[in-house]
Amino acid sequence: MAADTNIGKAGAGRTIISVDAMGGDRGPAAVVAGISLSAKKNPDIGFILHGPRAKLAPLIARKKILADRIEIRDAPDVVSMEDKPRDVIRTGKSTSMWSAIESVRNGEADAVVSCGNTGALMMLSVVRLRKIPGVARPAIAVLWPSRNPQGFNIMLDAGADISADENDLLQYALMGASYARNGMELKRPRIGLLNVGTEEHKGRPELKLAHEMIQENADAANFDFVGFVEGRDLPGETVDVIVTDGFTGNVALKTGEGTASLVGDLLREAFKYTPLSRLAALLAYPSLRRLNKRIDPRRVNGGVFLGLNGTVVKSHGASDATGVSAAIKLAFKLGQSGFSEKLAARVASAVSLPQDASTSQDNSGNPS
Amino acid sequence: MAADTNIGKAGAGRTIISVDAMGGDRGPAAVVAGISLSAKKNPDIGFILHGPRAKLAPLIARKKILADRIEIRDAPDVVSMEDKPRDVIRTGKSTSMWSAIESVRNGEADAVVSCGNTGALMMLSVVRLRKIPGVARPAIAVLWPSRNPQGFNIMLDAGADISADENDLLQYALMGASYARNGMELKRPRIGLLNVGTEEHKGRPELKLAHEMIQENADAANFDFVGFVEGRDLPGETVDVIVTDGFTGNVALKTGEGTASLVGDLLREAFKYTPLSRLAALLAYPSLRRLNKRIDPRRVNGGVFLGLNGTVVKSHGASDATGVSAAIKLAFKLGQSGFSEKLAARVASAVSLPQDASTSQDNSGNPS
Repeated sequence: MAADTNIGKAGAGRTIISVDAMGGDRGPAAVVAGISLSAKKNPDIGFILHGPRAKLAPLIARKKILADRIEIRDAPDVVSMEDKPRDVIRTGKSTSMWSAIESVRNGEADAVVSCGNTGALMMLSVVRLRKIPGVARPAIAVLWPSRNPQGFNIMLDAGADISADENDLLQYALMGASYARNGMELKRPRIGLLNVGTEEHKGRPELKLAHEMIQENADAANFDFVGFVEGRDLPGETVDVIVTDGFTGNVALKTGEGTASLVGDLLREAFKYTPLSRLAALLAYPSLRRLNKRIDPRRVNGGVFLGLNGTVVKSHGASDATGVSAAIKLAFKLGQSGFSEKLAARVASAVSLPQDASTSQDNSGNPS
Repeated sequence: MAADTNIGKAGAGRTIISVDAMGGDRGPAAVVAGISLSAKKNPDIGFILHGPRAKLAPLIARKKILADRIEIRDAPDVVSMEDKPRDVIRTGKSTSMWSAIESVRNGEADAVVSCGNTGALMMLSVVRLRKIPGVARPAIAVLWPSRNPQGFNIMLDAGADISADENDLLQYALMGASYARNGMELKRPRIGLLNVGTEEHKGRPELKLAHEMIQENADAANFDFVGFVEGRDLPGETVDVIVTDGFTGNVALKTGEGTASLVGDLLREAFKYTPLSRLAALLAYPSLRRLNKRIDPRRVNGGVFLGLNGTVVKSHGASDATGVSAAIKLAFKLGQSGFSEKLAARVASAVSLPQDASTSQDNSGNPS
């Protein structure tokens, strides 16, 4: 990693986003196009871009808007989608991903965005940024198109870890509530715990324990706990934040994506069927475009890693300029609001051990 | 339960379906309308209908087609959606659900259909029909609209039990393959095991064990094992049968339903937006109707309980005549093919203990 000296230029009074230019399916051109989009829309962002300088410099040179708002950190190597996270930890110091995280670690940047390998990004983030005290398992929080006024719900964990005990689920609830406040301006978010039914006697043992513990922390942590919710509430309007383990969350996320994609494809097929339906499709184009915009996964692009000393936004591997720009917008919002510090304070203020939750019911207003 | 004597009349050379008339959200009229639809389409079905005779007789009298193809079993009580399964076992002998299962138990009927309380129906079925040897946990198999030529994939367990170990997952694979052969005429179904990634090193320990065990049984049980699959494969074309635990399966099912329903509602909204879009909607009506038919949940109505001595089909609680008729069609197909006996034989022929799976690789062609 080359130590450049023009950080002052990129950073003058701005929120600085560290961006990994490499590792996405569409290469650095799409990332630079996304940065450029964001720069046009928001004069308060500056960038540090990580990757091979020889590749990045010509891409940057073409974008006038970026002239004095970006600096390049030369990082010759790239983490590929196939690389094993453990190998990246061992040998990945010269990669753009490592370099990008380092800018948050040393305080130069307020948040980092990468389109690269999720597993490697998570493991590198944990190793380099460290978990905040009280969090055993960091989580990935994703946005889900929903019937709520804000248009999206938050779900976590979307797959950082394949299991979660009651303590982890409590942390996810606290972190999810904090994210909803700082990322979506929901003053008092409604939190639900994902289960196979809404009755309190249902589900696995850790879910019943987590139900008690989250309930006890709701008032102090300033959220409403609506109790158990079901899969259909993920795109619903009964709750803003859905808490689950990373295995279930990952399956649910991919099931939702697969279902929406199937319906979309069948819709396109249906409209191609007859001349009349093709005419209808033409007339319906603005309507369908509106719908598409409403559920466009690029608009909700950005899985946020929660529970670390620093804000890390994972952009979809296949992100185009629009997707990268959405992820940068989210990183800006969270970086600017000091989200990472607020979240750490929130988690620190609520330490409810399992034995507390299951034996004492009277300390719910006073988590120590 | 009144012992009627006209079973011969209903049963002359026909496949007999035992139907619980009560417990669905739309009441017995919807169930009788569904029976009537099926009777019109298929001359080879006879029915035994369970519920309060005073309510059912007038409904039946109005349907000429049912004249000599149905008999009523008087059962005065109803299992409600709120009833706890354990209470139904203790005090539910006079309910239509109990009576309906009894007709399969005593061999009068080839399969049973109910729109009632899923938990009660499962527990009653287990207690009265008993599990087949070799199956520890029965499963609910559901159909999922997919990109495959057959239009649907099978997923199990959709929520009979909230957990499953490697032995259960192997049984689910065997039972799912048998269901695919008998219910969907797939000679050599492709089986996948649901996980958070397709790499063999991923996932929970029981999934890795199950992966080995299912692989070992694939040839003898006449299916292709494609290995781990992800949530997006549920509506996909890479696999015909998806095996998972009931917790994950239930969340995935409800997430898929919720997502499809959200997209549908947003589509309707989009078409109401402007006069032009309303005109487009009018022209597009046949196209949208085709799409709707393709993903109509009523057409894939019918969760099948697998692993019991007898075929039980759970119709959706909100089923209308079309939904009930689809569930009856499925029950007929399975009842006529002697599915329940074939499945028992298949499970009996494949007993692979965990220690076999993890130590010996050379007996894969010869499961004992």
